[in-house]
Parts: sequence; C-alpha cells; structure tokens
Amino acid sequence: MKITPADFQAVKGKLGDLNLRATEIVPLYTSKKHYKTKLKKQIHKMSDLQRLLYASNEHSLLIIFQAMDAAGKDGVIRHVMSGINPQGCQVHSFKHPSATELEHDFLWRSNQVLPERGKIGIFNRSYYEEVLIARVHPDILASQRIPDMHQPKENIWQERFQSIVDLEQHLHRSGTRVIKFFLHLSKEEQRQRLLARIDTADKNWKFSEADIKEREFWPQYMQAYQACLNATSSKEAPWYIIPADDKKNARLIIANIINTTLSSLDMCYPQISPEREQQLQQFRQKLLE
Amino acid sequence: MKITPADFQAVKGKLGDLNLRATEIVPLYTSKKHYKTKLKKQIHKMSDLQRLLYASNEHSLLIIFQAMDAAGKDGVIRHVMSGINPQGCQVHSFKHPSATELEHDFLWRSNQVLPERGKIGIFNRSYYEEVLIARVHPDILASQRIPDMHQPKENIWQERFQSIVDLEQHLHRSGTRVIKFFLHLSKEEQRQRLLARIDTADKNWKFSEADIKEREFWPQYMQAYQACLNATSSKEAPWYIIPADDKKNARLIIANIINTTLSSLDMCYPQISPEREQQLQQFRQKLLE
Repeated sequence: MKITPADFQAVKGKLGDLNLRATEIVPLYTSKKHYKTKLKKQIHKMSDLQRLLYASNEHSLLIIFQAMDAAGKDGVIRHVMSGINPQGCQVHSFKHPSATELEHDFLWRSNQVLPERGKIGIFNRSYYEEVLIARVHPDILASQRIPDMHQPKENIWQERFQSIVDLEQHLHRSGTRVIKFFLHLSKEEQRQRLLARIDTADKNWKFSEADIKEREFWPQYMQAYQACLNATSSKEAPWYIIPADDKKNARLIIANIINTTLSSLDMCYPQISPEREQQLQQFRQKLLE
Repeated sequence: MKITPADFQAVKGKLGDLNLRATEIVPLYTSKKHYKTKLKKQIHKMSDLQRLLYASNEHSLLIIFQAMDAAGKDGVIRHVMSGINPQGCQVHSFKHPSATELEHDFLWRSNQVLPERGKIGIFNRSYYEEVLIARVHPDILASQRIPDMHQPKENIWQERFQSIVDLEQHLHRSGTRVIKFFLHLSKEEQRQRLLARIDTADKNWKFSEADIKEREFWPQYMQAYQACLNATSSKEAPWYIIPADDKKNARLIIANIINTTLSSLDMCYPQISPEREQQLQQFRQKLLE
C-alpha cells in the first residue's frame, strides 16, 4: 500500500466529525519482520536527511505530538527518532507549567525551546494543551489570570487559535517547518492499553490516576481536538491525523511524513567558492610542510 | 582484549607527561564487522540502562567530551549515542560565548543546561574550555573582565580548577554522575584528518582556518590539558584519557565506560506498595465496567 502525507492531512475548516475518522487502517506491513525492515529504511533515510539539514543550515524542523493518554507518543519518539544523531535532535516534554511559566503568556515557555537552525525539535505535548486540556477543564484557564477572566470571553479559543497560527506562520517565514501529529486512538483501544499497563509489572508504576479521570472527558476532548485541528491546520503548518490503534502502523506513517517533509526542503551541502578552494589548497600545502 | 575504565582513568596529581600517553592501543576488534557487532551490543545495553535511569529517576549522567580539533568528538556522539532514545538524552555544543553569557561567571551558561534527573546530558566541549583555550590565549581571559585582571593573578587557573571541582562534587552529591573524556589524538593523526577534510568534497565546507591556527599551539594545549586533568580528575568525577588515533577503538572504549558507569548506579524500576496494588485493581475494575 502506497501512502502520501496528504492522505492524513487535516484541511482547515473542512475536518468534519473527528469521531468518524478511522483510528485503524490497512497496515503498511505484512509481518513484524516486514515492519522492522520498513522502519529501519525510513530511519536511515531520516538520519541522512538530518545531516543534510544540519549542513545546509537554513531550516529547522519542529515536530509536535498531541494525543490522548496511551496513544503512543513516547513510543513513536523512541522507535522513530532513536537512530538519528541526538546532537541534531532536541526533545521537550511539557509538564504542568511552573509558577514562573504561569506568569507569562501561554506561548512563552515553548518559545524558549524552539529548535535551532539545522536541528530537529520535538514537542511531546505543546502549547496546544492550552486549547485542549485548558478548554476541557475551565479551572485550568481560571488559574492563568488572563485579563477580564471574571467575565469569561466567548472568543478566548478563537483568540488562542489566532496566536498559535500567527506564531507558526512566523516560524515558517523564519525557516522552521512545523508539522503536527494527532495520534487518533479509539476509546476501546485506550481501555485495552490502560489495562495492559496495570497488568504489566514493569509498567504499572507509570499508571496515573489522571489517565482514568481524563478518560471520562473523552467526548469533550474530541470536541476540543476537532475545533483545534479545524482552526490551526494550515498549508504551512499542517496537522496530520494518524490512525493510532495499530502502533507499528502509526510509526511507519509518521516516519514517512517526516521524511517527505524533510525531502521537500531545498537543501544542499554548502558549495565552496573558487577563492575558498584556492585558500584550502594553501592550507593543504601548509599541513604538508 | 578485556578493558576496564580504570585502564584509562586519570589519577589526580599523578598524571605524568601527557605526551607520553599512548594515542593508540591494540584494537578491541578484529574487523569492521566485529567492530559493528561489538558497538551494537554496547548501544543495546546503553539503551536498556537509559530506560532504567529514567524509570528509577534518582540519578542523571553528565558526559563531557574535550579534545583537539578533528579528534572525533562529533563522531563519538553520532555513533555511540544514536540508538538511544533522544527523549532521554540532551546534547549541548558550546560555541563562542554570547555577550550575555560573558556578563556572567564562567560556569553560568553550563548550569542552565545540566541534565534533568533521569536523563543523560552530553557536553560537546564544556566549561573546561575556560582552563584550556582561555589559558592558551590570554586575550580570551582578558575579555572576561574578571576582577583585578589588570594585574593578572598567578593562581587564576588554580581558582578555576577549584570552582570546577566544587561544582562537580556538588553535582555528585545531588545525584548527577559526571564522567569526562579527553580524546587523546596524536599531532600526526590530526594532520592526516585535516588533510582528509580538505580533500573530501562533502566535508571541506566544514574546514575552518582556526583548525590550522590552533594546531600551532599544540604544545601549549597539551600543557593546559595536562594541568587540567591532573587537577580536576576525581573519584567522583573522573577524567578518562582515550587513545583516539583509531576512531572505532575510541568509540568502543567510551561506550564501555559509559555502560560501566551506568551499571554501577543503584537503580531499579519503581516498586509499588501493597496499597497501591490494591488501588490499581480498583482502577482495573473500573476500566472493565
């Protein structure tokens, strides 16, 4: 089966009902071995493209992962991004904002850790939490002391979408390519994974009560995601909706989209001028002496 | 051949003449294939240890690389650390300090990027530059506006060593293991590598005039390294002198030392209490309903 990123891209304003989107599709692999071979090939390609990204030193890539708990974000990062040079890759997991971070606007802390030119930055969760969890739980928004919050604004979410879109357009103009993955999991598959987490001795320490609690807000989260994806997917910073019930398949699709994005950039190893070539030959002579 | 980290460890105050230390030893591998197999095995082990480091969440590991140009620092990071989860590994390359950084003490900028608990931090160059390049080139020191620099202090280097040792002892007490690698290259091997850099079309853009210039200060650098290693190698934060003329061998030795260090930490997956076990069973029931 041949896929293209467009198959998974959310089109701004035309998303439709997120609940009707598939959380599983025909696998791109026929066996575990086939999966491993395909993923390895993609990782090799990514590793080469990363070196080129670094050498050409004009662009950076920001990859954002958002999803419900247990959708496989950490696994994607581990399986897809292991194998590339950690010197060119910066991963940031955003936890509960600190008191200092809460004293700033909602994009502030992400701005501190945007990827440098030539590098790949990965956000495991991101400023998008501010239109997702903060929308599902109004008390979180209340803690942020936004002006006039005693009379909550109707259009607070539209305003935040606008701030996000503006930031991403600015990043695009500045050379950072932004791609965003929503790992789309079914509620039933999440149930299975949470049960497996409890039943696996090596993993049960990871289990958090919040996982169960947030699960009860599933419909509200789907609504919030739908509104968010609909408003913030753009040609310059697209959202991809990845069927995530099959972890292996999700990883292959994501690796494919990352590589397609990197390949689409106009990159080349720096060319040296004839003058520089002459200078290098002088250095060569000096070294030979 | 069997090696132990102690074979390469610098003993405080007992280093002797650095120029007499081997830059090449009997290889740990018999063929390229054998090297690849051995390295792969080490990387697998490191990947497992890193997961345990993250799960046990008590320690972090700071790995510092220092060396002359073309000694292979970047290659070590790429070949040894690719394959571990980038989410648990943060690499920092220290370039020329910015104007803002120069307004602070010489340890300040490194402090900002020390690894978090549970993570591996890698410094590609480090605060050690402040007792190496700054010692070889007094004008760098002059730019730092240290008090009384109009009458340069005799003991400035001893003072800096003390600050470094104190920081590293503090880190050790706080759970961060610090290990430091000096990639020990011969001047002749550096010449060969710089020539190869000029002659390889894909690499010659990387060539910098500074590489040639700094090479002229080789004896001064060796003296500075010798004084530094002698003063700052400790049981808690050891320096390892890695023969670096053979890149593959250097990578195998370094991977071995990193794994030995990680293995020596008292780490285990979190154990859950009987009360917590009971609670998990309640969650289990809730998920099954």
